[in-house]
Amino acid sequence: MVGQAIGTKLVQAGNHVTMGSRSASNESALAWAAPLGERATCATFAGAAAAGEIAFDCTSGAHSVRVLGAVEPDLRGKILIHVGNPLDFSRGMPPSLTVCNTDSLGEQAQRALPATHVVKALNTMNCDVMVDPALVPGDHHLFLCGNDARAKASVTRHLHEWFGWKPANVIDLGDITASRGMEMILPLWLRIWQVLGDAHFNVRVMHGG
Amino acid sequence: MVGQAIGTKLVQAGNHVTMGSRSASNESALAWAAPLGERATCATFAGAAAAGEIAFDCTSGAHSVRVLGAVEPDLRGKILIHVGNPLDFSRGMPPSLTVCNTDSLGEQAQRALPATHVVKALNTMNCDVMVDPALVPGDHHLFLCGNDARAKASVTRHLHEWFGWKPANVIDLGDITASRGMEMILPLWLRIWQVLGDAHFNVRVMHGG
Repeated sequence: MVGQAIGTKLVQAGNHVTMGSRSASNESALAWAAPLGERATCATFAGAAAAGEIAFDCTSGAHSVRVLGAVEPDLRGKILIHVGNPLDFSRGMPPSLTVCNTDSLGEQAQRALPATHVVKALNTMNCDVMVDPALVPGDHHLFLCGNDARAKASVTRHLHEWFGWKPANVIDLGDITASRGMEMILPLWLRIWQVLGDAHFNVRVMHGG
Repeated sequence: MVGQAIGTKLVQAGNHVTMGSRSASNESALAWAAPLGERATCATFAGAAAAGEIAFDCTSGAHSVRVLGAVEPDLRGKILIHVGNPLDFSRGMPPSLTVCNTDSLGEQAQRALPATHVVKALNTMNCDVMVDPALVPGDHHLFLCGNDARAKASVTRHLHEWFGWKPANVIDLGDITASRGMEMILPLWLRIWQVLGDAHFNVRVMHGG
């Protein structure tokens, strides 16, 4: 769902998008690509990793690191925007996290991809809001982190160009270890979602200056 | 620091406050009480628990449950506002949490105090902001949770009366298990603090409606 929301918006913004799945003939991926024209194609994870200049990891938390490790050579020197969260629904609701506190999925991704610039971003909100921040009125914030300043600057520019995120509303939290905090907000996010009954919300950091 | 900030504001709001410590002659507690007049007194933890109608737990995370268990009889039938966070600084910076994900300090407190209405609140912000929300301009939110609706309503009224929190800016996240999310925001909070260089901030939940 997240990958398709992002992929659709990227195609609409003029990009060529290759949706990676376990199989190049994944039915859901083919159904996603069909109405979008020739700029949307489907491939295996390896095929998508090889095709892209910039990769998004929207795989579910339990599978993310294994998938990334398998396509490591294809991602060298590239930027990977890590969107996934380590949610574990196997023990019922509310989900717990498969990793937190002293490690994170973002850090695991960076360790699995030592020659890739992993930027954790977008994971703290619903996918509709990721690609259309105007769904939530007013200014609100997108957090990101990563070890490479140029990669973060590039992602910030692209998030503006593709999705309309004002650079002033992007908060750079530092190196990739900040993924811990970005992923650990999920339990609070899920509770706020329950209270509001609607996933179209986000947080704004209010500051006395 | 948190207990003294809250205690001072409570005294200024006209309440009698007993500051509990391991010893009734704790120097820091006595120094806190001295300039505040007769409404501020010091006692052991048990003495403070017995004296109060409403208790605040501002002990550090590593000690909270042990202290509460020792004063359990004195807190029966009362409201305990649980402010502490399970921060562990013993392994250096950034701190990790001593409990998270499938349990929380707020839940541990409720289990240690089965006859007390534990309300988790205020832990998601700096203590100056807890007692003076106007330090952060505009509307911003205070989360709370707990198993007893009347206790939460009472706390909401008191937070307005004592500290100036508008009831409309208080978000009730449900039962005490929401303490997990409220405590797990700490790693993100600490990163935002580093970025801003100032603890006088808070989050506002922005909602598309």
